[in-house]
Amino acid sequence: GSATNDGGAGMAQALGAALLTSDNKAIARGGAALATLSSISIESLDPRIQECTVQVACDVTNPLYGPTGASAVYGPQKGATPEMVAQLDTALAHYARIIERDLGLDVSEVPGSGAAGGLGAGLLTFLHATLRPGAQIVLEAVQLEEHLRTADLVITAEGQLDSQTAYGKSVGAVAGLAKRYGLPVVALAGGLGDGYEVVYSLGVDAVAVLPSGPMTLPYALEHAAALTSDSTERALRLLRIGANLKVL
Amino acid sequence: GSATNDGGAGMAQALGAALLTSDNKAIARGGAALATLSSISIESLDPRIQECTVQVACDVTNPLYGPTGASAVYGPQKGATPEMVAQLDTALAHYARIIERDLGLDVSEVPGSGAAGGLGAGLLTFLHATLRPGAQIVLEAVQLEEHLRTADLVITAEGQLDSQTAYGKSVGAVAGLAKRYGLPVVALAGGLGDGYEVVYSLGVDAVAVLPSGPMTLPYALEHAAALTSDSTERALRLLRIGANLKVL
Repeated sequence: GSATNDGGAGMAQALGAALLTSDNKAIARGGAALATLSSISIESLDPRIQECTVQVACDVTNPLYGPTGASAVYGPQKGATPEMVAQLDTALAHYARIIERDLGLDVSEVPGSGAAGGLGAGLLTFLHATLRPGAQIVLEAVQLEEHLRTADLVITAEGQLDSQTAYGKSVGAVAGLAKRYGLPVVALAGGLGDGYEVVYSLGVDAVAVLPSGPMTLPYALEHAAALTSDSTERALRLLRIGANLKVL
Repeated sequence: GSATNDGGAGMAQALGAALLTSDNKAIARGGAALATLSSISIESLDPRIQECTVQVACDVTNPLYGPTGASAVYGPQKGATPEMVAQLDTALAHYARIIERDLGLDVSEVPGSGAAGGLGAGLLTFLHATLRPGAQIVLEAVQLEEHLRTADLVITAEGQLDSQTAYGKSVGAVAGLAKRYGLPVVALAGGLGDGYEVVYSLGVDAVAVLPSGPMTLPYALEHAAALTSDSTERALRLLRIGANLKVL
């Protein structure tokens, strides 16, 4: 989570970019101060950034500003009143105009530019980053597809499965990739929330739950390792029954 | 559960048997009063009892008296002090001697005669009952074996599976019978306690747990119906994966 709404301006300043007011002073910290932004220069940006390729794990697709932008959607949960949201949204729109004028980039409509209070836009602008769903980056990093080629069964897991699982969580990404290889998928879960059945439409074939009986969340967390292995054993015993069952 | 320790003497009196003191008065209620028993007559026993066949569901095998008898094993949990246990045990032994002398039956060593404070002995003596494990009676009543002949899969259930499950609980009885027909057995459980894995040695092939996540026991009890059907669906989805899996 983030607590900022400055479009990555603070990050850019920390990396050496000059974000200046009309009297050539560095703008102050925070989203509202973007309204005082008069010019941007990246000449003093740390040169090592040019040698880096930056991939950003980003699961939201909000634009920088506007009705579905960073301020309107995520501002309230960070404590912004409706008046503050309007002020912050106007400041981000101004920021985008200066970026386009001074740096020749229009990042405000790129999906995810509104992520993390507009940090997405700052990463696109100053680090030439690419924004990708986090699950995709992780699945590539662990070379999941390589493993799937020789797998017979896929077991994935999530703390809680619920209707939110459809939105970019790893279970859906794993199941979707597994289905391309025609592989069955079991999803382990610490718990099931309302609407968890959506996972069946994402490629999950069966769900197994960790708790071995009524228990508190703190107890479940404390014993997560044992609950995970025990639950997996129980799931595999059920699979084995099916393998020997002639009627299914 | 029972709260008596009178060997079924009160039941016998209620059904018309005469259990008399040396001055031919009915003995008083309660286990200790058996010490005053001088003679038994069943002449006045309700004649309809002769027309009845009584099967007693009885999961314990304790004898009427002695170190593993009704008083020693179950007396303390009914509130008896060690002194009371000794007094009650002596009274039951005396009761058994009068039964044998007046009615020609020695029921004191029959497994289960010590059940329910010796009510087992009273049922054997006055109703000529047969004592059988409760699960056996239920399995016959529901004609389980008939159903097994055409079944492909057996699903049974218990509130909690634990090391006690080996002792006459229905899951073990169902699984044992299912195994005679070579059928796979899934046991559903509200929760798993220490040593629940003993069920795998009783013929259970796989266990599925009802709770869908961390929850309290009252919540689980209140939602038992939905949790049961949901958990069963999840178990069957796992079976179906196994049925389609080539490697198992």
